[in-house]
Amino acid sequence: MKRRVLIVGGGYAGALSALRLARKTRKTGDVDVTLLTAEPFFVERIRLHQDVAGPLRRRTPLAKIFAGTSVQVRSGHVEGFDFDARKALVRDGSHESFDELVVATGSIASSGPFDGKTDAYSCASEADALALRARLETPGLRVVIVGGGLTGVELASELGERRSDLRVTLVTSDEVAPMLSEGGRAYVRRVLAMHRVDLLENEHVVAADDGAVILASGRELTADAFVWAGGFAPSPLAKQSGLAVDASGRAIVDARLRSTSHPFVRVIGDAARVLIPGPDGSPQVLRMACATAMPMGAYCADDVARQSLGPDFSFSFAACCVSLGRKAGVFQRRSRHDAPIDGRLEGRLGAFVKEAICRYTIGSFAAERRGFGYGWPGEARTLQVRQSPLPPELVESVVVRSQ
Amino acid sequence: MKRRVLIVGGGYAGALSALRLARKTRKTGDVDVTLLTAEPFFVERIRLHQDVAGPLRRRTPLAKIFAGTSVQVRSGHVEGFDFDARKALVRDGSHESFDELVVATGSIASSGPFDGKTDAYSCASEADALALRARLETPGLRVVIVGGGLTGVELASELGERRSDLRVTLVTSDEVAPMLSEGGRAYVRRVLAMHRVDLLENEHVVAADDGAVILASGRELTADAFVWAGGFAPSPLAKQSGLAVDASGRAIVDARLRSTSHPFVRVIGDAARVLIPGPDGSPQVLRMACATAMPMGAYCADDVARQSLGPDFSFSFAACCVSLGRKAGVFQRRSRHDAPIDGRLEGRLGAFVKEAICRYTIGSFAAERRGFGYGWPGEARTLQVRQSPLPPELVESVVVRSQ
Repeated sequence: MKRRVLIVGGGYAGALSALRLARKTRKTGDVDVTLLTAEPFFVERIRLHQDVAGPLRRRTPLAKIFAGTSVQVRSGHVEGFDFDARKALVRDGSHESFDELVVATGSIASSGPFDGKTDAYSCASEADALALRARLETPGLRVVIVGGGLTGVELASELGERRSDLRVTLVTSDEVAPMLSEGGRAYVRRVLAMHRVDLLENEHVVAADDGAVILASGRELTADAFVWAGGFAPSPLAKQSGLAVDASGRAIVDARLRSTSHPFVRVIGDAARVLIPGPDGSPQVLRMACATAMPMGAYCADDVARQSLGPDFSFSFAACCVSLGRKAGVFQRRSRHDAPIDGRLEGRLGAFVKEAICRYTIGSFAAERRGFGYGWPGEARTLQVRQSPLPPELVESVVVRSQ
Repeated sequence: MKRRVLIVGGGYAGALSALRLARKTRKTGDVDVTLLTAEPFFVERIRLHQDVAGPLRRRTPLAKIFAGTSVQVRSGHVEGFDFDARKALVRDGSHESFDELVVATGSIASSGPFDGKTDAYSCASEADALALRARLETPGLRVVIVGGGLTGVELASELGERRSDLRVTLVTSDEVAPMLSEGGRAYVRRVLAMHRVDLLENEHVVAADDGAVILASGRELTADAFVWAGGFAPSPLAKQSGLAVDASGRAIVDARLRSTSHPFVRVIGDAARVLIPGPDGSPQVLRMACATAMPMGAYCADDVARQSLGPDFSFSFAACCVSLGRKAGVFQRRSRHDAPIDGRLEGRLGAFVKEAICRYTIGSFAAERRGFGYGWPGEARTLQVRQSPLPPELVESVVVRSQ
């Protein structure tokens, strides 16, 4: 049976990881890759704001993305895991077994500071985007987008350009687009103004309810649709299933993206809390993004595949030996396929070689302990140069008797 | 938490594997190696015939063999496994958890064709050897050893040389020492004769009971001790615990020594049924021997360790980009630690680059599918040369506006 690697989640991290793992293990053929994901198409999340503002784009079927690969793509909502039994539990009551698991369940709309507010829209999933799109069908509506990061800026710009009938306000507690340089921000402000987006920077939202957004400055914005673009929250699956998570619910992983609580589980993409060195060398948490998720997916595939990339076990016979009491023995050369061939030591010399070989076995333990390492005839060599005991070419084709 | 690798069995295969795995993962520190074995000392099986015939040798404590290593050595008789819960069940009622399991439980005395015979001695375990030694304390006894392979020849020679008071007969259904060349066999016959061992070749034993061994030729040998040296049987643990086994009970493994039924379980040494290419290219079963078990132990350690040897996940930021509707965008260079730095594209060019990057994500899927592979900034390079998109050094420190 092959190693069954199950990847849960078909976003940027999961889809790339599945494709790459299948590619890297194609030759060895010892890994079955299954991608278990909710939708039969790829959700191009970084374009969802386009769907809100303009004509719906054509979806890319997963069948097209995985055409010609050995990845088994299966639709299903995973609701939990039985880690003891190595099973993913699917909403329809079925399950998917695995030997190794990759959790790539990404992130969802964060509820932000408005936990109880049910009519906050977002752009985090296709369903979210379609709900917002539906809400905005009526021309002339007032939209308040809270959050001036990439998501908020892209949605505000897109709506400003393509839905000039709407009245769009972008509120942010910081400067707009803080990830850009000062010049970049100035440019963003000009484009937003050109598209008649009202930009309120350094303004905190204190409440949002009943069609109104209330700012710390006292200002009140009427809103037919209130969109929270203040960040994403990790998929709750990691926490619900008992993986070690941080306060936000991101799965805590080691430097090889393995769950610190369940080392046979890897977590990649937005669902994982990955630390990388910050400017001063102290660790910083890698931010959620397609740009960080895809490298995690690729790395994870490489790491899983690495186990498949070594040589198969190989062995060649070289000799056999037998002791005949303490003072005699035979050391017999044998072909690599274990047939006797010319060349043999007998008598005291045979006994000496046999004794040396018996000692070599225990000596190998000492060698391993001290860092030298054991070699054997026929070993498929990797990068490391190893010492090989009694290579057959050193034992000439002679019979030596000593008695 | 580290990967917990449990090695069950401390013979040649298990002990070497544990030492080597600890050595190979010392730097990464991500593997805990536990050796669970019945005895607190190493059983040097290839010398047990010496214990039968001469003074008892000093045992080598496992504590000495594993001194200075990180291997946890634990004494215990494993009676089974709970594979779902990844636990080895120990006779004393305790258990040992693992993420990956290595079964190195070796072989035991085969019952040979005399299943019901309770007074057949052997030389397969220390207990077997000591029982035979105890039986032979009285001078002058008659010993019949059945089996002219290495075990039978070594025991007969050793007894012939060191216990000249005994009357030793070696019976074999083939020629003696069939693994030697004709000249080697002639030498063995001479040494056996010198030690007054009666050698009966090409004689089949048809019954052995009540102190008598009856041969197919009709001859009857009286025997105070009847020793079966006609082969070993694999430890019954693999079969009892539900691993796929062959008719003899050896665990069926793939070319990487992983159980075909339980791919997270590796089986090494005499307990494993390993196929290697025979003289005509068709597979042959690797015979049980210290010489084959130790290479399996070393290989297995390398294979487990390989997963630890890759680079940690690494990532450097290079840029971020934001679309501002369909006709404008910003591509902003950022430091590897994710701070904005000089160099930015704006306007239609910015929109074009942002669009290209969005397409690149989906394009990466196609690249993976076709075998090219995805690269990312900051990736810890392994042997493979990868294509990296938009390396930061190609984006000069300029602001380009196009509108």
